[in-house]
Parts: sequence; structure tokens; C-alpha cells
Amino acid sequence: MQSDIRRTLLEMFTNSKEEYVSGQKISDMLGCSRTAVWKHIEDLRKEGYELEAVRKKGYRIVNKPNKVSENELILGLQTKKIGQHVHYEEVVESTQKIAHRLAQEGVQEGTVVVAEEQTSGRGRLDRVWHSPKGTGVWMSIILRPTVPPQNAPQLTLLTAVAVVQAIQEVTGISPQIKWPNDILIEGKKAVGILTEMQADADRIHSVIIGIGINVNQQQQDFSDAIKDIATSLAAETGELINRATLMQTIFLKIESLYEEYLKNGFGLIKVLWETYAISIGKRIIARTLRGSIEGWAKGITEDGVLLVEDDLGVLHHIHSADIELSTRK
Amino acid sequence: MQSDIRRTLLEMFTNSKEEYVSGQKISDMLGCSRTAVWKHIEDLRKEGYELEAVRKKGYRIVNKPNKVSENELILGLQTKKIGQHVHYEEVVESTQKIAHRLAQEGVQEGTVVVAEEQTSGRGRLDRVWHSPKGTGVWMSIILRPTVPPQNAPQLTLLTAVAVVQAIQEVTGISPQIKWPNDILIEGKKAVGILTEMQADADRIHSVIIGIGINVNQQQQDFSDAIKDIATSLAAETGELINRATLMQTIFLKIESLYEEYLKNGFGLIKVLWETYAISIGKRIIARTLRGSIEGWAKGITEDGVLLVEDDLGVLHHIHSADIELSTRK
Repeated sequence: MQSDIRRTLLEMFTNSKEEYVSGQKISDMLGCSRTAVWKHIEDLRKEGYELEAVRKKGYRIVNKPNKVSENELILGLQTKKIGQHVHYEEVVESTQKIAHRLAQEGVQEGTVVVAEEQTSGRGRLDRVWHSPKGTGVWMSIILRPTVPPQNAPQLTLLTAVAVVQAIQEVTGISPQIKWPNDILIEGKKAVGILTEMQADADRIHSVIIGIGINVNQQQQDFSDAIKDIATSLAAETGELINRATLMQTIFLKIESLYEEYLKNGFGLIKVLWETYAISIGKRIIARTLRGSIEGWAKGITEDGVLLVEDDLGVLHHIHSADIELSTRK
Repeated sequence: MQSDIRRTLLEMFTNSKEEYVSGQKISDMLGCSRTAVWKHIEDLRKEGYELEAVRKKGYRIVNKPNKVSENELILGLQTKKIGQHVHYEEVVESTQKIAHRLAQEGVQEGTVVVAEEQTSGRGRLDRVWHSPKGTGVWMSIILRPTVPPQNAPQLTLLTAVAVVQAIQEVTGISPQIKWPNDILIEGKKAVGILTEMQADADRIHSVIIGIGINVNQQQQDFSDAIKDIATSLAAETGELINRATLMQTIFLKIESLYEEYLKNGFGLIKVLWETYAISIGKRIIARTLRGSIEGWAKGITEDGVLLVEDDLGVLHHIHSADIELSTRK
């Protein structure tokens, strides 16, 4: 099936909002015969879409394949910008790398790079991020906020809020955020976020938000090295999750928070973030490149900087660190 | 002539430090006959190199062509890193764009992108930078300092100091720096610097320093739109400047300041910068995206932020602005 026909067809089903679409309507819209319509529907079935056909009513998509290529992401997508352009690859070194190139080439804001598998996915400080084939969400989203570069950490926090909300909506689980960029379920890591930017001193040109989510791995799929600290949505719920649906929900949550952010600033997002954050109000150890600080996590600043008060009452501004809960009280 | 032979030959002349290199030595080093040596020397002459040949002594390069391709940049280059790898193009849209791509591909630190002409060179805030063919230095230098992103403006200031020192050394002119990124001669702009970065919240991945220098334009070459505010080194000195020599001097100055910066921090560079700065201690108007502030320019912070004290005694931290000297006293 030609990709433009497929896209038009999937958009018709999206716009019908789970109502039936008649064969006649499809035939009119695509400008093809009823026989050709039947052929296109069969093609969709071969690609893994489950379609219900009811006489005198038409067709309805009841299930889509658990893939994350452009087709699955466009079917049902409710956003205006984010995810409207998808760059999909089966295997990549890292979606961040491709997104950096596309950002330089000037692609539209909201463009998303998605892969089924990353061979060298990475997190903060060049740490390895395991991205096995077909089991997770490995993607990078390109934004172009007109803000100064020192505000970039706010986008990491905004994304964390959006991902928490999307996971809640799709799975019913309530994850928690560990500053700055991890999302935990029952204390184990399920999501990592890596926000990179292209900027000059005056303003950001592009922000490239990498999101890695362990979705359908079983607990035994994790290697010995990470099995005690990593989990997946399926391991926690006992159910396979449709990745495209999860991604679409993330796109919608990010879009709505991002509109709020550009219009009214970081205030509301800061409040939401603190609601979901695991460590605020707790005693923590923050390990920075220059040494460790132990104290009480008081909150975050308007810039997304972590505030830690040590035992002498000194308030530290932490830009970059790994944190853990302290066992001392 | 093959490029590896040319490079070896030019390196021999570089290493001889303006002493004569004997035909025998060239023949030994290149592993070719004396006739072939003579042929290679003739090839260099055809490319515009002036060579002196003295019986029983050998050859000496007395002048190189006023071009800026890899050959001219390697002959006489004294640096360890900066300029050791040159990506040269006759015409590009912008050297920054190419340098961003090379940085993503992981090229070595110190790689320089150079062009004879830019068709859409740009400065801060996407302003146009005129880069006509063969008359200026249009280049981008890739650095990978292991510093947090909020320190990036320091690299703009470091570069400005290096360029001022290089211009002084090559031409005898003493230019002045206008915060943040312009270099002026007698109040007219001769150099623009644009520092861009690829970074995450923890650290800088690459800094791409774009440097545009008006070198050999005559005053009448500037369009009506900029003729009152722009100048060139040749217009000020009345002499044509060898661009490759100027670039090599800039490479050496940047390398030496950059080593100091990585080892001992921004302190010394801050002092040098303030020495060359035109506006410190003067009454200025700073126009920011949110409005204008008038007051006394007190200096810069450790982060490269401009400090302006207004008439109520409030000290403003200016991250991004256009400044001009105020006519009020």
C-alpha cells in the first residue's frame, strides 16, 4: 500500500473516533473503487491491525499492532505538533544522534525520532542505556523553545511530569520522579530522560529530549547488572502495554504542558514536579563531580536547580549530581 | 601533487623554521628522485608559493599565497591541537552549520572549518554576517571543554581576547572588545564571534566558535547599509594581510588561553578581557529582549555575565543584550 494512502486511511479512522467508517466513504475519500478499498483494508490486517467489519456500518479499528512506526503513531494521535512528524528506524545507534542532525537541518518543532532498538543508547554522563528490540520506547523529541539556555533543565522536569502523567493514564501505576531525570516505580528505574540542547549564549536553538522507557520487558529480561535497580511497566502491571498508545499519550501531555510553559512560565510545572518527586523533604546525599553533600532536599528553584540544606543550615544549589536517600535521619 | 606529499613537504619547510631545506633532504624524506623534487617545487610555485632556491643550500619558502586552504594553514603552524585538522570549502552556507555536523560525528577537538565565502553567514540572534569571497576569515573552531553549560559564555570572551592579541601581533593595531562578542577598531566593527554549544544539563559536549573577521576589504567594498559601522584590517592599516598567518596566530593564542582556562579557570582571562573591553567603567545602555537598562558597566562576573549598576544603585546581571555607550553623563 502506498504510504500516502495508508496515512489518509489511518487519519480517517482517527477522525471517526472509534465510530465505523463506511466503505463508501473510504472509496470517496481515496477516490478508488470499493474493491480497492477492500484490498487496502486487507493490507492493514496483514500489517497487524485488527479491523471489525459490520454490514451497512463499515469498518472500525479495534486494535493496532504493537509497533511504533509512523502508521501506529499517527492512528489516534490528538496533538497539533508533537509526533506529527515521525522519523522511524528499525535499529539506530542512538535516537539522540539522529535528532541532533535533524535539528540542524531545520525540521519542524515536535518532530520525533523513534527506533525499535538502540545499539548504543545512552543516558546522562554517557552512561549506557539498554534499549533492546521492540520492548521499550526509545525516542527523541525536538523542541525549539524561545528561552535562554540556562532554562534548559526546566524542559527535563517538564518532560518528567508529562511521562509520569502518561504512565498513570495508560497503566494506572503512579510512578515517582527522582531528580533530575529518572522515573521510578517502587524504587526501581523504569524511565530515563536526557535533555540536550543546541544553543548560543542568547537563546536555545533546539532542545532534544531523549526518553527511554522500559515497557514490555519481563523482570527476567534484565541483566544481572541492573535487575535489582530496573523494572518495566509490564513487569509492574503484569500486562503488555501498547507502546504507540503510551507514546501518543506522552506527546499529548508534553504538548499541553509545553503550551502552558511558553505562555505562563515554569510555575505550574514546578508545583506538579514537586508533587511527583520522591526526594523533596527527605534527607539525601547528592554526589557531584566535586564531592558529596548530605542534607535535606528543600525543593527546586525556578531554574530547575535542586536546593539542599546541609546540617550547618547552608543552602546548596545543585546543578548536576546523582542523588540517593540517606539512611541517617 | 598528491596531498600527502604536499603536506609532508610543507611540514618540512615548517620544521626548518625559515632555514633552507636541501634538495637531498627532500629527496630522502619523500623517497623520490631529485628530478621529482624539482617537479614538486614547481608545483608549489604554480599554487602561488614563492620559493627561493640557493645553490648548495636548498629551498626556502619566502611567501605563501593569500589563500586559507589546508596547505596554507599547515605551513608554519605551531599549535598542538587547534587547526591541526582543517575542513576547507570554497563556498558554504555557514561554517557553523558544517562544524555542528562534524562535532556530532565526533571529530577531534581543535578541528577548524574554513571557507573562502559564506552565502548565509550569521551572527548573534540570526543577524546577517557578510562574508564575501576571499576577503575575510570565516571559520568555526570545535572545542570540547569539560565544563558545565552555564560556563559557555566564558569561551566567547576567551576567543575575543585571543583574536585581539592576534590582530595586535599581526597588524600592530590595538582593537577593543564590545561585550559580548564584537571587536571594534576605532569604534567600527571588524570581528564578530558567535559561540554555540551542544550540551546537556551536566556538561558541554562541544562548543562551536564561529569567528568572522573583515581582513582585506577596502572601505568602499562595504555596502551603504554597513559602511559607517564596519571596517577591515586592511582598511585600517592600508596593507593587505595574509589571512593564513592571521588564522595561525589566532589558533596559537586560543590554544594557549584555552590551556590556561582548563588548568586554572577563568580568572586570568577575565582580567585580560577587562583590559581590552571598551565599555567597562562607562555609562551604557543595554537593550535586552525584555527592555532597556541604562547605567554604569561595572565589569563581568566569573560566568561572563555583564554587571550594570542603574541610577538607583541596583546591580543588574545581563546575560544577553546589545549595548551602546550612553551620551548622558
